[in-house]
Amino acid sequence: MLYLIGLGLSDETDITVKGLSIVKSASRVYLEAYTSILLVDKSILEAYYGREVILADREMVESSSDEILHDAQNVDVAFLVVGDPFGATTHTDLCLRARSLFIPIRTIPNASILSAIGSTGLQLYNFGQTISMVFFTETWKPASFYDRVRENASIGLHTLILLDIKVKEQSLENMARGRKVYEPPRYMTVGQCCAQLLEIEDIKTQEGEEGEGGVYSEESLAVGAARVGGKTEKFVSGTLRQLCDSADKLLGGPLHSMVLLGRRTHELEYEYVREFAVDKEVWDRVWKRDYEGKQ
Amino acid sequence: MLYLIGLGLSDETDITVKGLSIVKSASRVYLEAYTSILLVDKSILEAYYGREVILADREMVESSSDEILHDAQNVDVAFLVVGDPFGATTHTDLCLRARSLFIPIRTIPNASILSAIGSTGLQLYNFGQTISMVFFTETWKPASFYDRVRENASIGLHTLILLDIKVKEQSLENMARGRKVYEPPRYMTVGQCCAQLLEIEDIKTQEGEEGEGGVYSEESLAVGAARVGGKTEKFVSGTLRQLCDSADKLLGGPLHSMVLLGRRTHELEYEYVREFAVDKEVWDRVWKRDYEGKQ
Repeated sequence: MLYLIGLGLSDETDITVKGLSIVKSASRVYLEAYTSILLVDKSILEAYYGREVILADREMVESSSDEILHDAQNVDVAFLVVGDPFGATTHTDLCLRARSLFIPIRTIPNASILSAIGSTGLQLYNFGQTISMVFFTETWKPASFYDRVRENASIGLHTLILLDIKVKEQSLENMARGRKVYEPPRYMTVGQCCAQLLEIEDIKTQEGEEGEGGVYSEESLAVGAARVGGKTEKFVSGTLRQLCDSADKLLGGPLHSMVLLGRRTHELEYEYVREFAVDKEVWDRVWKRDYEGKQ
Repeated sequence: MLYLIGLGLSDETDITVKGLSIVKSASRVYLEAYTSILLVDKSILEAYYGREVILADREMVESSSDEILHDAQNVDVAFLVVGDPFGATTHTDLCLRARSLFIPIRTIPNASILSAIGSTGLQLYNFGQTISMVFFTETWKPASFYDRVRENASIGLHTLILLDIKVKEQSLENMARGRKVYEPPRYMTVGQCCAQLLEIEDIKTQEGEEGEGGVYSEESLAVGAARVGGKTEKFVSGTLRQLCDSADKLLGGPLHSMVLLGRRTHELEYEYVREFAVDKEVWDRVWKRDYEGKQ
């Protein structure tokens, strides 16, 4: 049997009791380690489970899935995924491959940022499609998210934005020389995400066709979240400009994610999120002008 | 401290290790028992936790929240919610009340149907807003969901539909006589939901303004799900007409939920969900005609 087991969002004790008992008895245990991370190291998981955990990087999952699935017709293989196994990313390929090998599959769900973001006080049925924001470079600023945000905004919905993480990156030099030396991991912050959002809005407004820009602005309201579900969970709300300038100091370390508010925001959501405002006066003023009573 | 603790979706072992240790040590333990249910009884939870669990019905949470929050400035109160504490419903009111009493709040997230539905193989970033379907009566057929589905469909997104449950209902007679006798619980099935969807489509098409109907049809593709995350988890896919006629027999007992496919469905999603089709030929024909390559 192939078990896809969610680990939840924060530390080793966020696994479910059911998931833990499968991990303890499985023949092999893999940890998918490239789409998200827990806030604790693999060694802590190994000590907690009392057994070895094999790191499965993107290459292994995408190109060597038969290694993971080896003999899973006869023995139990546990494939651990941070969050929910089908949360931010899907492992459809791995499952389709397992199916074609007649390996039964079972999923042990867990918390995902897609639902845990509800702890901001924003109501989950007011969310549209989720988008991802990747680290821009000088020459690569993918902006396909912009149309997704526009679609959500057109029907008044919130947009959850998942922020890029870079683990096991090689410098160009190390890559060229074939040296398996990796850069320190990087985690996008809410401040960086807001800056990139505004950069794309500027480009769309200046260079775009008539009416293409203007999906959001420096005064759009948003909520930043850090370490959701963990002991040091933190939220901060404000305009995109405010979050650009001060979210990172207020939120602290990774992982971050954020929500761009839809104009259909309910009074109760406004009140709940207001508690986290960088500046409650600005929050109230923008809310009354651009959101309150809008449908 | 007020702890909002998610129980996950299926049985007593779906609680997280962290959640379980809080339950064991809290002063009082409440179970929110009106928006969703586990597939096991309260007595099983009590035996598993080794302690009393107080059922909190809607009236208690909405009108007597101070009872729940009593002395939570000084002692730990655990408030258990099936799924994720902020999943299908929110407990914003309870949290706002706790805040006003200076009671610190902590959330222990868990799996929610909103993310666990990813085990259908449908990709979570292709979902629009979630809707709820209530049991219709002869005279009460609320159809506000229809515009939400239209909005999702207009941008090609899937719609997750959460199905009504009725617990602790009184008959009119028992209510009139003040007898605290309750009807057996009722759980909406995928078949019932499909019938209601089609009923509203008929009404909108016949009675509506020009262009109001036609958001979906008997041949729209959908996926029904039962007992997601449980050992007997089951999926069935097909047209709304097919699911009307045969989903319930194939899916078995509660809880059910379903997804109406958006036309932006990806090839991999199609392939994954096809496995569950009532009739693969019909699935392929409708997919090719109405979904494949559509944006």
